[in-house]
Amino acid sequence: MATHRFTPSRYHLSIGSHEPALRIADGDTVITSTIDAHGYDETETQVIEAGNPMTGPFYVEGAEPGDTLVVTLDKIVPNREYGWARTIVAPNVLEPEYVYHLPPEDNWKVARWRIDAAAGTATLAEPADTMLGALVLPIEPMVGCFGVAPSRGQAISTATSGEFGGNMDYRGFTEGVTACFPVFVAGALFHLGDVHAVQSDGEIGGTGIEISSEVQFSVQLKKDAMVQWPGGEDERYVFTVGNARPLDQAVQHATTEMLRRLQREYRLDAISARILMGQCVEYDVGNIFDPAYTMVCKIPKHLLPYVA
Amino acid sequence: MATHRFTPSRYHLSIGSHEPALRIADGDTVITSTIDAHGYDETETQVIEAGNPMTGPFYVEGAEPGDTLVVTLDKIVPNREYGWARTIVAPNVLEPEYVYHLPPEDNWKVARWRIDAAAGTATLAEPADTMLGALVLPIEPMVGCFGVAPSRGQAISTATSGEFGGNMDYRGFTEGVTACFPVFVAGALFHLGDVHAVQSDGEIGGTGIEISSEVQFSVQLKKDAMVQWPGGEDERYVFTVGNARPLDQAVQHATTEMLRRLQREYRLDAISARILMGQCVEYDVGNIFDPAYTMVCKIPKHLLPYVA
Amino acid sequence: MATHRFTPSRYHLSIGSHEPALRIADGDTVITSTIDAHGYDETETQVIEAGNPMTGPFYVEGAEPGDTLVVTLDKIVPNREYGWARTIVAPNVLEPEYVYHLPPEDNWKVARWRIDAAAGTATLAEPADTMLGALVLPIEPMVGCFGVAPSRGQAISTATSGEFGGNMDYRGFTEGVTACFPVFVAGALFHLGDVHAVQSDGEIGGTGIEISSEVQFSVQLKKDAMVQWPGGEDERYVFTVGNARPLDQAVQHATTEMLRRLQREYRLDAISARILMGQCVEYDVGNIFDPAYTMVCKIPKHLLPYVA
Amino acid sequence: MATHRFTPSRYHLSIGSHEPALRIADGDTVITSTIDAHGYDETETQVIEAGNPMTGPFYVEGAEPGDTLVVTLDKIVPNREYGWARTIVAPNVLEPEYVYHLPPEDNWKVARWRIDAAAGTATLAEPADTMLGALVLPIEPMVGCFGVAPSRGQAISTATSGEFGGNMDYRGFTEGVTACFPVFVAGALFHLGDVHAVQSDGEIGGTGIEISSEVQFSVQLKKDAMVQWPGGEDERYVFTVGNARPLDQAVQHATTEMLRRLQREYRLDAISARILMGQCVEYDVGNIFDPAYTMVCKIPKHLLPYVA
Repeated sequence: MATHRFTPSRYHLSIGSHEPALRIADGDTVITSTIDAHGYDETETQVIEAGNPMTGPFYVEGAEPGDTLVVTLDKIVPNREYGWARTIVAPNVLEPEYVYHLPPEDNWKVARWRIDAAAGTATLAEPADTMLGALVLPIEPMVGCFGVAPSRGQAISTATSGEFGGNMDYRGFTEGVTACFPVFVAGALFHLGDVHAVQSDGEIGGTGIEISSEVQFSVQLKKDAMVQWPGGEDERYVFTVGNARPLDQAVQHATTEMLRRLQREYRLDAISARILMGQCVEYDVGNIFDPAYTMVCKIPKHLLPYVA
Repeated sequence: MATHRFTPSRYHLSIGSHEPALRIADGDTVITSTIDAHGYDETETQVIEAGNPMTGPFYVEGAEPGDTLVVTLDKIVPNREYGWARTIVAPNVLEPEYVYHLPPEDNWKVARWRIDAAAGTATLAEPADTMLGALVLPIEPMVGCFGVAPSRGQAISTATSGEFGGNMDYRGFTEGVTACFPVFVAGALFHLGDVHAVQSDGEIGGTGIEISSEVQFSVQLKKDAMVQWPGGEDERYVFTVGNARPLDQAVQHATTEMLRRLQREYRLDAISARILMGQCVEYDVGNIFDPAYTMVCKIPKHLLPYVA
Repeated sequence: MATHRFTPSRYHLSIGSHEPALRIADGDTVITSTIDAHGYDETETQVIEAGNPMTGPFYVEGAEPGDTLVVTLDKIVPNREYGWARTIVAPNVLEPEYVYHLPPEDNWKVARWRIDAAAGTATLAEPADTMLGALVLPIEPMVGCFGVAPSRGQAISTATSGEFGGNMDYRGFTEGVTACFPVFVAGALFHLGDVHAVQSDGEIGGTGIEISSEVQFSVQLKKDAMVQWPGGEDERYVFTVGNARPLDQAVQHATTEMLRRLQREYRLDAISARILMGQCVEYDVGNIFDPAYTMVCKIPKHLLPYVA
Repeated sequence: MATHRFTPSRYHLSIGSHEPALRIADGDTVITSTIDAHGYDETETQVIEAGNPMTGPFYVEGAEPGDTLVVTLDKIVPNREYGWARTIVAPNVLEPEYVYHLPPEDNWKVARWRIDAAAGTATLAEPADTMLGALVLPIEPMVGCFGVAPSRGQAISTATSGEFGGNMDYRGFTEGVTACFPVFVAGALFHLGDVHAVQSDGEIGGTGIEISSEVQFSVQLKKDAMVQWPGGEDERYVFTVGNARPLDQAVQHATTEMLRRLQREYRLDAISARILMGQCVEYDVGNIFDPAYTMVCKIPKHLLPYVA
């Protein structure tokens, strides 16, 4: 149960079977840092090109295909004073006819938000001349992109997501939450990055408030406990994640995975699982901007017969 | 500001320009009843065939095309002891390959839930032999299907939904909530029915816990205040509703409508509206079972410069 | 087997259980006319508002719910010298980011095409100053919108389509083709209109070359021969039609309907139907512009054991 | 303009920046072989695991990011006596409710087809007891999966497709056709495999008739002639390819790419390109089975002012 302090010296623009940056054991904790989506670090220096450079990968000793990697997000702390965000509503979430009316020159205007990690606030600094003034929002730092090396030797762009995790941009992946991923390769090869201080459901601006950060996480292996899609657990819910387009298909993956897990992991019989889901599931929209969309299917933990 | 007690004598299986059942004035309140999705009333007697028979339509004096009809759901009270629900997870929300593994004979099994309106609970009565036992859920009665007569003289099945409202099956349309609809015909012709005692996000079982109910609502007209899609307001949020397939298109309608309304009704300039939405919108999944899916785009009221 | 000459005196903007315009018998032929999508007749006079006004409905004596109405399009002849078309590529068939680059003022520019029905050509007349000059295209007149009254007393806008047919905008519905529709109401109540002289696959301009026309069709009833979706037959193919969004769902309806019909009507056993379809189906894109998209699943007739 | 005879000694299950198997020059021709989707070669021996193992990659000297790689499929000849095919219609192209009625045990039954390359026929050999008997189909051998290394150092499974090509399963990629791909990495790194003797539009059985083959192709580089998506040309058409889900998005990519290419490569002004497309495009359905669907947008060559 070691704690590793790891300072990244290189980053990856894909999640794949890259050379491990650090080898850790089941139960270990890692304290490290991430840079922002455009490759800027805590000094606002660009150290690698955009987008979504990953810290890692971390090789988890003993992890094998078929296992489940459980990652607890112990701490996510912004480590610089400013975050940036696009100022659009993305054209893919608007009616096609309406997009005609949007000025294309607005497409890449960037807002700057001052982050006060101690106070837990983000304050709109630029543009300073909007009706929002110096709008203050509470920060809820979250990991936008994380996951494990995919199957078949693939290396997949950190712009998108899949069964292996990736750029899910789900605001629920915040401090204190436990995430899980199916393991496809020896060592799992866990990557993470792209932290947001604040983000709407859906990441409909194409970004959250993009920051670099200090992150602490710990890992746990479940043997013979295959999940097929990412998922997680917070104080109130167990959840499953589907990543695909259209959103309907993301729904299908998340919902099927929940139906499977209720039976396999929570030992419900089939009709109990279906009745429970039919009245009690809730959905969160992860992202509806990236090449694959993300839908989250949740069930309140107090309704489960026991928590595995 | 009259209060009408109205006992329906006929029901409609489409929302359209049917003969008005009652004429009411702007500001009036109506106390009436609805029957369940299969046409069963408070005595569990079937009074009309399935599905989703509507009470109404109510002709609102003075309503004209281009107006907005605002409907406050003052009370929604189950008026019989049992509700029913299907016991499936609908095949359209499951991975197509997974549907192979579902026994077709399960497709139409029905569960019965005992409703205690005073206690505010639904208790699983049948099937009695599942692992859920006599599961107790808190009830949150909601209106599954309501809306106004659509444009072009259309009459549209209460199975589906559109700009006029309809079978949105959004669990957020509950007691205390104010809904709004664009008016397409003189008198608006408001219909309502299909109350659920409990329902998951998405209505993924194909039903909620289906009940008959007493309903009290009041209406208000906004002239020159056109909305293009249904929407609403509760204590914490203003929201807009998009109804379409795939869910991606429902997202587009709800999101565009929010962007329009923030500018038109809440007087935000364009970039303020976009920045605010980009960090602060939340989405709820209405239904992902009906022919048109429903997505809800919400913004916290405390972030709006004023509430119109 | 009478032949009726019918001059319409009114038109409908929805397909529904409207009062019959003419009663005809199984086997009869009708010679009538249609006006264009914006309600302009053969003299270029607007006789009703847009869009897609329907001639009819025709009540077919003896037609009952569960029957199949077979309509042969004997002749479709443009009856005026000009057709019009929009000059856009519709934003819903373009990448959302690309729509930014399209000038909104172009959205409603209209082209005029001179139609020479005798020569079988459409010649671009306006705008006259494009690089296309006086482009000449062969005409292939087709019925854009036709169908029968839907179920549940519905009246559905001629902008869209469904199981009952409607605004399918499939260029395959041309002279000589036989179409079929499931019958939902007594008399079937057949409507037709919205003829195009020329149209791309998908009607991606939002229109074809829109014309008024003379149309001759004949009807035939099949009792106990329920189809669930529209379909048809030409010299080489039997085809089925699915109308829905997204296109994936239109595919599902058309493909399932073909699988059902191969077994039910062409008496193939299940595995034969699947093997045949798996190697031999072809798809045509009907429309990808209207509220419901249209996909056509075709199978070469020479591969069928017999033609029913 | 050398001709290379290349015997593959290893295969790849992803398309990526793998070590080049052979270096060739602009204008060269390659004669090589491909194995079937399950990794079986011309002797029906499995030489690598499933699915869709690729021959290559071929490094094209001088190819740089921003170039277009043009590949002419000179010959595609089955090189063994049997091909195999699944016997399903894939559940994702069927109505979800209908999938309940499909026996899961059928899911992986395999048909065998005898291939007579000289006669140009495929004859159903197994199962022998269906109503199809020894059905004979003409073969039209096509390349199911081919493309170039994607951007960002990605390696993407040969199950799917994207801007780089991949598993498009478009029956139009047949002998005599010229395909083009955007180049993302130095040398382009061209891969190919997964030949089908016969295939429906859409590959709705989940396979075509899967064979190993001899393939001859030649390559040509276009500098400064960037395409953004794959495309091609046959005797009658120029076409563009979009790969995505849902099919609606594949349509968007293919249609936008055609609109761009008509202006950039065929020098049409914007309104001419739109008018021409609005009346004259045709669509082919590539695959509607794989993780990304494929849609093809075509325009008749005789309508283009000149062919670049």
